[in-house]
Amino acid sequence: MKAIIEGLNKNFENRIRLGIMSALMVNEKLDFNALKELLGVTDGNLASHLKALEKYQLVVVNKQFVGRKPNTSYAATDYGRVSFKKHLNALEDLLGGI
Amino acid sequence: MKAIIEGLNKNFENRIRLGIMSALMVNEKLDFNALKELLGVTDGNLASHLKALEKYQLVVVNKQFVGRKPNTSYAATDYGRVSFKKHLNALEDLLGGI
Repeated sequence: MKAIIEGLNKNFENRIRLGIMSALMVNEKLDFNALKELLGVTDGNLASHLKALEKYQLVVVNKQFVGRKPNTSYAATDYGRVSFKKHLNALEDLLGGI
Repeated sequence: MKAIIEGLNKNFENRIRLGIMSALMVNEKLDFNALKELLGVTDGNLASHLKALEKYQLVVVNKQFVGRKPNTSYAATDYGRVSFKKHLNALEDLLGGI
């Protein structure tokens, strides 16, 4: 069981981060408002968790103009996808038997 | 998705707490050393998470003497089992599609 717990990634413990990564695993990219709407969280909460995921290179930010309006979108990095998959497998191993 | 995130219980986010509850869901009770061995965590870490789970009545502590030696064991409460099952279902809903 010890190995199973060690397989769990502290960066994905928080439920908002679980939500962000889940959404980005099944979407190529999502903008801030789409994520906020999807997860039902505050701007500040979402921004701080996105910043942390970006710091650990699990998520990448893309800033561009859509027409004349600035648009910021987020995508999981390859490293983020692999890490999150590993986290899910460890969760499955730990919780699967219950 | 918002409902799914709300279904996740903050008390079970931490991976040590996930480990404790997983172990207590499939064992009637476990003593401190058994939990410590199973999860590979420090005394202090385990004690603080058990205390928090006890505070929210998710785990109950039983102190008794085995022969002449004091023995402290932990068990999930009914409320703890129901809450953890709900948490697992919400995790499954959130992560199942990935």
